[in-house]
Amino acid sequence: MEMLLNRGRAEEKMRKYDLGALIASSPANVFYTSDLCPFGRCFALLPRDRNVKPALIVPISAPTPVVLMSPPWISEVRYYGEFYVMTRWAKEPLTDAERKLVRAQEAWEKTKQADPTLILIKLLKEKGITKGRIGVDESNLPPKSPLWKEIKTNLPSLEPVAAQQIFREIRMVKSAEEMERIQEALRITEKAWQTALEQTREGMTEKEFSDAYQHTIISEGGSIVSKMGMYGPPIGFGPRTAFPDIAFPSDYKLKKGDLIRLDGGCSYMGYPCDMGRSAVLGEPSEKLRKYYDALLAGEQLAIEMAKAGVKASDIFNAVASTVRKRGLEHYVRHHTGHGWGIEGYDPPLIGPRDDTALEEGMTFCFETPYYEVGWGGPMIEDVVVITKSEARFLTKFDRKLYVIGKWS
Amino acid sequence: MEMLLNRGRAEEKMRKYDLGALIASSPANVFYTSDLCPFGRCFALLPRDRNVKPALIVPISAPTPVVLMSPPWISEVRYYGEFYVMTRWAKEPLTDAERKLVRAQEAWEKTKQADPTLILIKLLKEKGITKGRIGVDESNLPPKSPLWKEIKTNLPSLEPVAAQQIFREIRMVKSAEEMERIQEALRITEKAWQTALEQTREGMTEKEFSDAYQHTIISEGGSIVSKMGMYGPPIGFGPRTAFPDIAFPSDYKLKKGDLIRLDGGCSYMGYPCDMGRSAVLGEPSEKLRKYYDALLAGEQLAIEMAKAGVKASDIFNAVASTVRKRGLEHYVRHHTGHGWGIEGYDPPLIGPRDDTALEEGMTFCFETPYYEVGWGGPMIEDVVVITKSEARFLTKFDRKLYVIGKWS
Repeated sequence: MEMLLNRGRAEEKMRKYDLGALIASSPANVFYTSDLCPFGRCFALLPRDRNVKPALIVPISAPTPVVLMSPPWISEVRYYGEFYVMTRWAKEPLTDAERKLVRAQEAWEKTKQADPTLILIKLLKEKGITKGRIGVDESNLPPKSPLWKEIKTNLPSLEPVAAQQIFREIRMVKSAEEMERIQEALRITEKAWQTALEQTREGMTEKEFSDAYQHTIISEGGSIVSKMGMYGPPIGFGPRTAFPDIAFPSDYKLKKGDLIRLDGGCSYMGYPCDMGRSAVLGEPSEKLRKYYDALLAGEQLAIEMAKAGVKASDIFNAVASTVRKRGLEHYVRHHTGHGWGIEGYDPPLIGPRDDTALEEGMTFCFETPYYEVGWGGPMIEDVVVITKSEARFLTKFDRKLYVIGKWS
Repeated sequence: MEMLLNRGRAEEKMRKYDLGALIASSPANVFYTSDLCPFGRCFALLPRDRNVKPALIVPISAPTPVVLMSPPWISEVRYYGEFYVMTRWAKEPLTDAERKLVRAQEAWEKTKQADPTLILIKLLKEKGITKGRIGVDESNLPPKSPLWKEIKTNLPSLEPVAAQQIFREIRMVKSAEEMERIQEALRITEKAWQTALEQTREGMTEKEFSDAYQHTIISEGGSIVSKMGMYGPPIGFGPRTAFPDIAFPSDYKLKKGDLIRLDGGCSYMGYPCDMGRSAVLGEPSEKLRKYYDALLAGEQLAIEMAKAGVKASDIFNAVASTVRKRGLEHYVRHHTGHGWGIEGYDPPLIGPRDDTALEEGMTFCFETPYYEVGWGGPMIEDVVVITKSEARFLTKFDRKLYVIGKWS
């Protein structure tokens, strides 16, 4: 595995905004910057100058991710807090991870530093990052975070600049490792949808469908994404497909002619994915056939238009107008796609007011969902990566309207 | 299902802190206050006066949780943002949820309000909450949230007070509905550990064990909790049990004499659980038997001591000293338990510096984990609820050291 960070782009943005370093604080930004998916409050410090080593600050109560993660490209790690692991009987032969765990515990015991902010100030001094501007990801700092005061008091010549948006700008263009993780999440998700669709029959409940999907995710090595452990996968049958982001699989039993909407996806090594398909039990109605063709034509146009340099808003306008022309005259959407990355939605938005030009290496979900109360909500959604000349599919699943009973 | 909110206690704390209302902003606090597990940025407004109706502010792009959640005890809901669901062909007979979805969409279309903060200001005015103090849960508001400024400008006689800690204080004592969800999460978790232990045999990998555990969680209707979709359940075999919070099930193969550490749990309807057990393949060594007995004796003492009025620090001191006296002379911990609730760890902490007196209705995880690099990490952890006279178990699983091959 390579590092997640697009380091060249991060350095380019530090030059653009005149920053001597970036400090990540949110789980997503720490993970992206360091490869460490954090437990508890962490900081990652990335200096612009490659001769100055990057560093991580993590709680000693959760050393395992640092010690076992592979490969942790940031080797300088400082621990804070309080936690006890017995190391005094640890004798060779030890595994590499055990040796690192001993070092982590012993390093922490020398200082027993409780405050991550003070460690960060000390690190900045040690590394000579003491004047000019630095970018501080403010997104995970409480309104009264002591960090701002400590910088002012201890490093009066250093000017902290809010950097949440700068991290977003860096992350818009994906690294090879990010792309691989998204692609693996999609492979697992497609396998799970396919397994569930293959088991689909009249009378099957949404819950049974959702279970088949989730069991496959686990067997294939993916992680199930759920909001606060509350919601299931966003699937629905029949008129329930008209509910946006359905996430309560129910005991509704599938009937002949019912639409099935699949949406969302699993996560792989911290990277989620999002795709959508539509299926129907038995022959589709004329209305469903016509509407699905219109939605597919719109999404297809986005894929044909997308390449480096094209404006997000231009794609949106063309897609919406195509869906309307192709048979869904009343189609209204606030977007027909969005960037995709470590936190799910990433800028830019394929919407009417976003004039961002697409760049090589951006990943997008293009989608044309539709919701009609009392009838249903067919959809199609694919993940693509932008190149100089085209949009390349990361999804592989056939984009047709699946007719169950005519599985091919 | 009843409401999650302990409404009497919330009102009591509003009186104690002289607040006319509470505003929840974090996902956990919105969920707790309203029963709505939120998608996107939401607010829940809870007036102290029962004659003034509580209200919810949620994005129109995610109406489904509001419309389908059962039962939504807060019936006044305002929507913001932009999203389109076709309602004009929705004709009776409609389901109750479909009718609510139509009303939500039509209510939003009348105003197309984009800004949740402005809706909140308007609601406060409508409800006559315009002077005195209100508690604002600041934990999910960005450092430069416009809310503070809008209150100052539009409601100059209203003084917002940071309320994150007040919500914590309310949530320390669980409602009946919270307790039921935690108990169901434990039932599913115990079933999952048992299923996995029943399949355990020499040569089984941590991943296979973890898969058996996760498949059972899904089949039993639980949700798998994973940090950012990155980590698996915290289980480990052999010397790997010495790593705290192991969450990377590996290809390590179980050998005779290996310790198995189980920790953590699934989530049910948004409520997680946390418990721990130890098992061994074949006969335990004398050291493991002795250490486990010491850890169990410490945890047992916590359970015997705990009841309303007892100080958290007193329990900690007695537990740590018992573990040391019973054979683990060098035992050091920063805590031997913690409150448990919607966000996992809740105050108080069963630690040396927390003098909080236990109250009836608090739920705790009592635990005595131990980590020794190169050897292993046995543990025991139970969930209990505090009553006037005792600590009542919510965990049901036998607390012995499980000897695999001698499953009873």
